[in-house]
Amino acid sequence: MKKPIQKDITSLIKPQVRRLAAYHIDETPCRIKLDAMENPFSPPASVQREIAKALSSASINRYPDPSCKELKNAIAGLWGIKPANMILGNGSDELIQAIMLAFGGPTLIPVPTFAMYGITSQALAQTVVTVPLDRNFDLDANPLLKKAKESKAKVIFLACPNNPTGNRFSDKAVREILDKVDAAVVLDEAYFSFSGKSYLPLLKKYPNMIVLRTLSKIGFAGLRIGVLAASPAIIAELNKIRLPYNINTLSQAAAVAALKHKNVIARQISLLISERQSLYNALARMKGVTVYPSETNFILFRIAADATQVYLELKKAGILIKNLNKPGPLKNCLRVTIGMPEENLEFIKALENILATDICIKPY
Amino acid sequence: MKKPIQKDITSLIKPQVRRLAAYHIDETPCRIKLDAMENPFSPPASVQREIAKALSSASINRYPDPSCKELKNAIAGLWGIKPANMILGNGSDELIQAIMLAFGGPTLIPVPTFAMYGITSQALAQTVVTVPLDRNFDLDANPLLKKAKESKAKVIFLACPNNPTGNRFSDKAVREILDKVDAAVVLDEAYFSFSGKSYLPLLKKYPNMIVLRTLSKIGFAGLRIGVLAASPAIIAELNKIRLPYNINTLSQAAAVAALKHKNVIARQISLLISERQSLYNALARMKGVTVYPSETNFILFRIAADATQVYLELKKAGILIKNLNKPGPLKNCLRVTIGMPEENLEFIKALENILATDICIKPY
Repeated sequence: MKKPIQKDITSLIKPQVRRLAAYHIDETPCRIKLDAMENPFSPPASVQREIAKALSSASINRYPDPSCKELKNAIAGLWGIKPANMILGNGSDELIQAIMLAFGGPTLIPVPTFAMYGITSQALAQTVVTVPLDRNFDLDANPLLKKAKESKAKVIFLACPNNPTGNRFSDKAVREILDKVDAAVVLDEAYFSFSGKSYLPLLKKYPNMIVLRTLSKIGFAGLRIGVLAASPAIIAELNKIRLPYNINTLSQAAAVAALKHKNVIARQISLLISERQSLYNALARMKGVTVYPSETNFILFRIAADATQVYLELKKAGILIKNLNKPGPLKNCLRVTIGMPEENLEFIKALENILATDICIKPY
Repeated sequence: MKKPIQKDITSLIKPQVRRLAAYHIDETPCRIKLDAMENPFSPPASVQREIAKALSSASINRYPDPSCKELKNAIAGLWGIKPANMILGNGSDELIQAIMLAFGGPTLIPVPTFAMYGITSQALAQTVVTVPLDRNFDLDANPLLKKAKESKAKVIFLACPNNPTGNRFSDKAVREILDKVDAAVVLDEAYFSFSGKSYLPLLKKYPNMIVLRTLSKIGFAGLRIGVLAASPAIIAELNKIRLPYNINTLSQAAAVAALKHKNVIARQISLLISERQSLYNALARMKGVTVYPSETNFILFRIAADATQVYLELKKAGILIKNLNKPGPLKNCLRVTIGMPEENLEFIKALENILATDICIKPY
């Protein structure tokens, strides 16, 4: 009577998923970690004590607050987003996924940009349409609008500032897109704290606008808290996709305690911005290096040699940065996160040493 | 030149999503919370100190371990699931979603069962096919197999034991389904600790089998840690859907510290099982109450009157349970989570009082 399972079980999985490779994270242990746009600073001891106190009174046997009331108020206090306009995610990753699930595809993105837009869209078996940025990594509204129309794009993701390029797109282009396109426009402001510029004030003007932010770049990557701001109409729809208990109790408690210290966060950001300038200057002075302007907490630079070799040599020296080198606009490009002053100095010194060796003198 | 956005932005959202209502969680403040299958006990003070210590040394400015190595080892130690067979989720909710995203629809479920299967499937705009349980809430393999074939179901969810009914399905039926169906079979063992029975040992035999577990019912609902066990082939596919940093740093650290104390967990479970028996006996003795056997940490019972009235009266008395009353197999049914001994006593006393009043004497 027993009918054996004939098929390989994975043959039941969507072909679009089977074709994918899993997202790879470089987990090489390293002395100096400058690959992931983390804030290198821990909270000061006094703030850590407050966080510890908040954590110790959290009831981990109970489900978390599904509507994250306290945390939304804390974020409202930090960034002026009203709780009614807000939805929180287990990192922006989850919010990006929720947007794609709500609107469906196609998703339109300029390239190069944040890898998770493409990866998530593919994992959801949705169509991704791309438009190349210009050679300064800036955005031209016309080709994008044309492609949006042709492809009937439902959502456009614009990272402002953009990752991994570090620049902000022309404000004129972004506004023209917001004005003219019949699609949701997601302005991903993960790095806005390092540029000081935001589209949030335009939320009322553009009902098709969604703003993403995150606590990850300002000191709390471990908590996984992404923030989405949009009209209550969009929030209501996304709340149907959101899993009810998506922000755990401990992250809620820790973030509420930490965000009381806006001045600490502001001080760390301002130090990182000043470090970014020093790092930029040092890279700009190096022979064989083209450095791109940054309004983020990382810097993109291009090596006039095999960047992968340079990346591997840095890794040998215990310094992990991000290798972006592949054929196309990021050929021989590397991305370094702004670290602590001493880390940045050590990175510069190591890079100078590597570029001075034989390996890298010959142009690639 | 400016073309105004004509459409209501939500018209761009998938119609299947627009048609849904958001998942409702009863957030009524209450004195005694017996609605959500939480473990009522906090960890003992000594374990709480260990958790606090682990939390205070976590680096919240860094991204969490994306592969949750330590936590997987801790779970391996608790339940004997090998890390290579394991994937963790931000609660089982995320794992249920990931399974549906990987396999696509239709999803086949017996009803009544855990609401999130249907809700998640609908939010993903996938088809849900249902098969009714029998009048003892047990499963008959034949109609299910027939429906699976007709509908070309990709995934079948069987909660073992089942929520909200509390029983385990006939083992013969479950094995027959595993044997004969050309679909992934998810055995959701969220409540297995309270029944002591598990299908995990059959994982090698059935390549189409996926087992779900969770830390939520054994004392750690606030951490949001769901556990999925399956063949490495299925794990590899699901890892493509999983968001890379889906388990935050604090939940990882707290769970690693807490799971070292298997004896504490076992003691709490055994106390809850003994409380379940007392609660069952008390309900069985009540006139106008039909109580269903439970192998979980909750009890389903039916009132020979308007259950919604009873639910509301309990709420007035500060006791929150779950109202399942709607036309169909759960007509006039309520579900109570096993609480602390004094909470259970108070619930029984309040229920007795309510059933003795005028409101409920007349049959509904």
